[in-house]
Amino acid sequence: MLGEFELIRRYFTPSALPAQVITGVGDDCAVLRLPPGCDMAISVDTQVCGVHFPAEADAASLASRVLRCAASDLAAMGAEPLGFTLALTLPQADEQWLQAFASGLQQAAADLRCPLVGGDTTKGPLTLSVQVHGSVPAGAALLRSGAQPGDEVWVSGTLGDGAAALALLQGRLAVDAAAGAYLHSRFYQPAIDFPLALALRGMAHSCIDVSDGLLADLGHICHASGVAARIRQADLPLSAHWRAAAGDTQALQWALAGGDDYRLCFTAAPQHHAALQALGASCIGDISAGSGIVVVDARGVPCEITATGFRHF
Amino acid sequence: MLGEFELIRRYFTPSALPAQVITGVGDDCAVLRLPPGCDMAISVDTQVCGVHFPAEADAASLASRVLRCAASDLAAMGAEPLGFTLALTLPQADEQWLQAFASGLQQAAADLRCPLVGGDTTKGPLTLSVQVHGSVPAGAALLRSGAQPGDEVWVSGTLGDGAAALALLQGRLAVDAAAGAYLHSRFYQPAIDFPLALALRGMAHSCIDVSDGLLADLGHICHASGVAARIRQADLPLSAHWRAAAGDTQALQWALAGGDDYRLCFTAAPQHHAALQALGASCIGDISAGSGIVVVDARGVPCEITATGFRHF
Repeated sequence: MLGEFELIRRYFTPSALPAQVITGVGDDCAVLRLPPGCDMAISVDTQVCGVHFPAEADAASLASRVLRCAASDLAAMGAEPLGFTLALTLPQADEQWLQAFASGLQQAAADLRCPLVGGDTTKGPLTLSVQVHGSVPAGAALLRSGAQPGDEVWVSGTLGDGAAALALLQGRLAVDAAAGAYLHSRFYQPAIDFPLALALRGMAHSCIDVSDGLLADLGHICHASGVAARIRQADLPLSAHWRAAAGDTQALQWALAGGDDYRLCFTAAPQHHAALQALGASCIGDISAGSGIVVVDARGVPCEITATGFRHF
Repeated sequence: MLGEFELIRRYFTPSALPAQVITGVGDDCAVLRLPPGCDMAISVDTQVCGVHFPAEADAASLASRVLRCAASDLAAMGAEPLGFTLALTLPQADEQWLQAFASGLQQAAADLRCPLVGGDTTKGPLTLSVQVHGSVPAGAALLRSGAQPGDEVWVSGTLGDGAAALALLQGRLAVDAAAGAYLHSRFYQPAIDFPLALALRGMAHSCIDVSDGLLADLGHICHASGVAARIRQADLPLSAHWRAAAGDTQALQWALAGGDDYRLCFTAAPQHHAALQALGASCIGDISAGSGIVVVDARGVPCEITATGFRHF
């Protein structure tokens, strides 16, 4: 039987570490060095077998997904990755599973430039908990609480892909092979757009990543900032890949409340409109005094909203 | 049913945050500020219901134990606590359990001056994962790899208490009420000696916390430093509370291989002997060229070692 120390040595000891990692895997703590004048941003994301993924899920894909989902929170703060830790709870040390998991993790870590620096392995029901660490210049973190009346509301990429992918994986959506490949990749390799996130530091007043669904997450911004938002339904960016198969009503529902998109939703003053458009973001609405969110149709008439995003418990 | 956001708001939102916490619970990331010239030390510790503690364990005690066990790794690096995150996986949102857990967590956080700054709550088998963050002046972290031939080997506090406490909790040891109270406290409120740990920065060549057992943990120092160690059995500091009840052979076994003590084991040049003694540490042996650990009796004759410390898997 593979022991804990050997397991860590064999699967979770990177060969080379970047300069910010003073001490990596193998001591009581990892030690990270920040660039001068920077604060450290920290977020943890846990995924549980049977709750967040099925037992038969591909280990490499799981590793990619849990690291990318956690890194999405760094992007939402305008923070640049420094490194991550992994708390891995396993029912048994299955070497084939571990090999695939470690390989998916290494690939995602390389893609995100976010090295594994430490962790803990324990015996128990399969649970993956990834904590990411990033650096952000002191005072420059993109908070949920900075939205101002007059701001425009933006999102990066397309919305609803996470929910469409889940429907596909659960057999509730049928699409062609190209769309299937697109959705599979969006689910297991969500693209975390760090170049955009870092560019937002000087422009965005508030930012969040869309993990619970646009309405829920923009709702967090509105609540934390004490403002209201208006969303123009016609301007929501939807992927053509699955839209025709799902139908317009379902597509809109997923875009507003689907969750798991790992896109950025942010607000910025209108003076940055052209720059943000050039960065590929979509302007979907605006912020005003008040509270709550209204979604309006192409004529400006409010739509009824029944979905409120994904919640645990 | 209590929702995830309400659960966090009600039980895991501290009322006041110290100056190093720029952003606490409630945004995409927590943001921590380090003192100038300092690196960040990071460690994660996971405890699983049915593996590390029984389902009926007191929630407040569990909270205290998991935070203190994680903080022990900061002390072992000579790092000062900045804050911690909690990844909490729960089968259901039981308010009575959560109330007790949050209260135990708050008390331990206050004792250790290590505030809760963020986390994640998920549904699933009960699993507690705590990640601690501390600051240490650049280059001053106490590593496992710095032990030098000629160093003395030291431990803080007494050894074997963790194993004796486990034996008591499992009905394998009978002691009087005072010893029972002592062992219960050592198990659920292990004392993390940060004043000693910070004092070691200028003195110790290497350091580790005794979590897997003295032989296993000192073995990590020897392996990482490329040195050998000799331990004087007669100098091992044992608590009188349970020693008579357990007998000398069992006491020695627990002190060498018991685990869960959360004391510091460190090495330092002999010039610091008096200073370290004044700090309450016990000198138990010395470091030489070579590899491996030998335990000698009062006449200097090597004893046979059969125990090798606790391992997962």
